[in-house]
Amino acid sequence: MVAVDESEESMYALSWCISNLISDTKSNNKLVLLYVKPPPAVFSDAAGYIFSTEAIAAMEKYSTELADSVMERAKVIFNNLNATNINIERVIGIGDPKNVICKAVHKLEADTLVMGSHGYGLIKRALLGSVSDHCAKYAKCPVVVVRQP
Amino acid sequence: MVAVDESEESMYALSWCISNLISDTKSNNKLVLLYVKPPPAVFSDAAGYIFSTEAIAAMEKYSTELADSVMERAKVIFNNLNATNINIERVIGIGDPKNVICKAVHKLEADTLVMGSHGYGLIKRALLGSVSDHCAKYAKCPVVVVRQP
Repeated sequence: MVAVDESEESMYALSWCISNLISDTKSNNKLVLLYVKPPPAVFSDAAGYIFSTEAIAAMEKYSTELADSVMERAKVIFNNLNATNINIERVIGIGDPKNVICKAVHKLEADTLVMGSHGYGLIKRALLGSVSDHCAKYAKCPVVVVRQP
Repeated sequence: MVAVDESEESMYALSWCISNLISDTKSNNKLVLLYVKPPPAVFSDAAGYIFSTEAIAAMEKYSTELADSVMERAKVIFNNLNATNINIERVIGIGDPKNVICKAVHKLEADTLVMGSHGYGLIKRALLGSVSDHCAKYAKCPVVVVRQP
């Protein structure tokens, strides 16, 4: 499982995974691309009256487009690396990335979780703590934390 | 590079590395086994007068024997997994594991660092913080944190 987000580093983590963990000789390689969207609640909590329904819908649309664009970028990487022998599954999660990722590892019985070290944006990271730190501690499988050189 | 210690988990991390990161088809696989011994200073700091020279020598001997025994256990794993196409280098570091490991990654230009999540003993970990947490944050290469199932 590779946890991807908008960052360059998560795309680098995906390339690392394809180059280092995917065996050329096995035909049953399966790779789950996991992208986590923020929950709608982020836009309409106790202070929710600030945003109109239209604004919430616009943000929802933006976050869906962001997910699509990340998955598109991942596709380019698969093509560039000639990763043709991989069975790819795209999963979109909703919620706090660190919890969603750990739960997905467990539910989908991932063998290995690969992710960038600076995942989910500098500001969110400062506020919420590093997602990779959390996953390296709590995910139920080996975790690869990839740092872009 | 695989950071090994006395724990079962670090031996599991070594097995994981051989099974998942070492390519059968490449002939130039190189694996550095890194074991970190405590510095002599641990036995003879400001309160050093507690220990006689003989006691320090005995502890030094114990720590060297521990390093040897860990390397021996690693050898058994290589044999069990038929890891014959690997060029193995054994490195013994001295000092605080988390700093020694990060420095060794840098100096030996490791492609990937593999380690157990509970490295270096529960008590030391409680006192010094998790070595794998630190390395996942500061090592200059992708870090695999392996948890024993």
